[in-house]
Amino acid sequence: MNKRIENVLNRSEADELLISDPIAIFYLINKRFYPGERFLGLLIKKDMTPKLFLNVLFPSEKIEGVDIISISDTDVLTDVLSRYIDKDSCLGVDKTLQARFLLPMQENKIARRFINGSLAVDKTRAVKDENEKQLMRKSSEINDQAMAILKTLVKDDISEKQIADQLLGIYNSLGAEGFSFEPIVAFGKNAADPHHMPDDTKLKYGDVVLFDVGCTYKGYCSDMTRTFFYKKGPDKVQEEVYNLVRKANEDAENYVRKGVRLCDIDKTARDVIENGGYGRYFTHRLGHFIGIEDHEYGDVSSSFKDLTETDNVFSIEPGIYDPDTMGCRIEDLVIVTDEGCEVLNKYPHDIEVIG
Amino acid sequence: MNKRIENVLNRSEADELLISDPIAIFYLINKRFYPGERFLGLLIKKDMTPKLFLNVLFPSEKIEGVDIISISDTDVLTDVLSRYIDKDSCLGVDKTLQARFLLPMQENKIARRFINGSLAVDKTRAVKDENEKQLMRKSSEINDQAMAILKTLVKDDISEKQIADQLLGIYNSLGAEGFSFEPIVAFGKNAADPHHMPDDTKLKYGDVVLFDVGCTYKGYCSDMTRTFFYKKGPDKVQEEVYNLVRKANEDAENYVRKGVRLCDIDKTARDVIENGGYGRYFTHRLGHFIGIEDHEYGDVSSSFKDLTETDNVFSIEPGIYDPDTMGCRIEDLVIVTDEGCEVLNKYPHDIEVIG
Repeated sequence: MNKRIENVLNRSEADELLISDPIAIFYLINKRFYPGERFLGLLIKKDMTPKLFLNVLFPSEKIEGVDIISISDTDVLTDVLSRYIDKDSCLGVDKTLQARFLLPMQENKIARRFINGSLAVDKTRAVKDENEKQLMRKSSEINDQAMAILKTLVKDDISEKQIADQLLGIYNSLGAEGFSFEPIVAFGKNAADPHHMPDDTKLKYGDVVLFDVGCTYKGYCSDMTRTFFYKKGPDKVQEEVYNLVRKANEDAENYVRKGVRLCDIDKTARDVIENGGYGRYFTHRLGHFIGIEDHEYGDVSSSFKDLTETDNVFSIEPGIYDPDTMGCRIEDLVIVTDEGCEVLNKYPHDIEVIG
Repeated sequence: MNKRIENVLNRSEADELLISDPIAIFYLINKRFYPGERFLGLLIKKDMTPKLFLNVLFPSEKIEGVDIISISDTDVLTDVLSRYIDKDSCLGVDKTLQARFLLPMQENKIARRFINGSLAVDKTRAVKDENEKQLMRKSSEINDQAMAILKTLVKDDISEKQIADQLLGIYNSLGAEGFSFEPIVAFGKNAADPHHMPDDTKLKYGDVVLFDVGCTYKGYCSDMTRTFFYKKGPDKVQEEVYNLVRKANEDAENYVRKGVRLCDIDKTARDVIENGGYGRYFTHRLGHFIGIEDHEYGDVSSSFKDLTETDNVFSIEPGIYDPDTMGCRIEDLVIVTDEGCEVLNKYPHDIEVIG
């Protein structure tokens, strides 16, 4: 049995797990399926070769170490499942399993008890293995390169959209396959909206320019933010805001190591910004876990008290969104190590005037 | 209580319905929410003002005829729900309700029984009211206009992607807000793949050109396919294939009326193509229902035996995908009437040489 499946079972309270999220299945057996409305499930338990329940509409080659159980639209799903699931077991299902599948499983009593089994998968995914770390390093390396290109595109009157529209081509030329999320390009006051989507706003002298961008490389995500100044350096207050955000980022990154509480990493950054007098303008959590998906289970926030584990990967992204002075965010990805962390983004944090 | 909610309750077997699909909620109360991972639910039952359970993170103005029940991330969802749901009731939940919500509802016994209640919503949505029909007519009218523009973009060596990239701008200029699905542009042999995505394939003399495109207008979808010939008319076999597909489309559209079986509409088209000797190259259902979503509940297929109702709206899209001669599909949307149907797409079915 592969190591990832073994790790999930070791973390699970259920006797068996029926995993239906295509991304979790990709993580466990390295095959992507797009089942649409049809059922897809991977059944795992100790001492059994994993069973993949796969509709005949999605043909697959043999998968090493996995038995494929073909199902068709005319099969009764619960009949097929009950051949493999022990009716006296406690069955863990995905948090995202839909009622149209779960209700018939319960009515037909294919297990004794049904529980939400996702945490075992989510916590296993949160600890990256060597291969995953390599892919995430590469994905962020490409993102650093893309940032260096992106900043050269600015010119008077170019719109946010016109810059954002060029990014996919840049990523492709650097070897990435696509976006990990829709890029944020924000000029001037728009940078004070943390979720601003690129629009027809045109760049003008003295604007703040915020890029929050990420790609996927062999399925793994990057995610970075930098805030620049167009043609004119920051005024006194903007410089203060920028340096507070930078210090919040760097103090938090210095604090990160194995075994600290995620909420305390958030607090390290938040204290910097609060002590600087801008606490009410830092309106979101400090970071989120990331891997195959841009947002994975795990938060760096005041309410998330779990301890970091070595090889967790998450973002550190403090921001100040003050409509009267500026919006600013500086975001890196980090890998937790025993003694500290590895910062994946090498693009500098310095104040930079572009254009 | 509004008419749509009343219609859903009339079709429902459950005592109460807890609807969580944001699109179904939009349909019922004309407000769009994007709850992400958070719970959103609309509880409806006879003789009760509908209750909308809405996280405080998604503030809303008052909604006419709906009570908004605010929930926050620190509330226990099942406690809040149980104040409004009768614990002895049979509760209909959405087919898409996720296990992370359904399992705690069951454990806390907020209802006596849980059933999949989606069919009542889906079947109500399948019958369009006057306002919806008007929006769908307009959406298809824009799509007809877009098709006429699209065909003028062809030239030697232009790629499928280069054409597809211009379509959003065309739709916007015609008053539509976006795509109803990712457009299909297929040249030459690519037209023989019914789900081909636009790539860097370049257009060349004598190619077949297939456009399968649709927009949304005030939230309502259009969806149409036409197959053209670039600079050179069809050869004898291609003409035969084209005319078979056209006859399949038109015979099916002529067959449509209130009270016929959807599978028999499919058969009408399929018989034409089978009798012409191309049956094995017509590899998908004849059509799908459509409205707020491009694919809604309801199929025009051999296995869907339901009868049409007046004001159902669906696609009629026969195709022949023969890699050795050509791929061809002709698709219109139709509204079922008592005596026949209204074909929403006016763009002609004739063989047309473009470029």
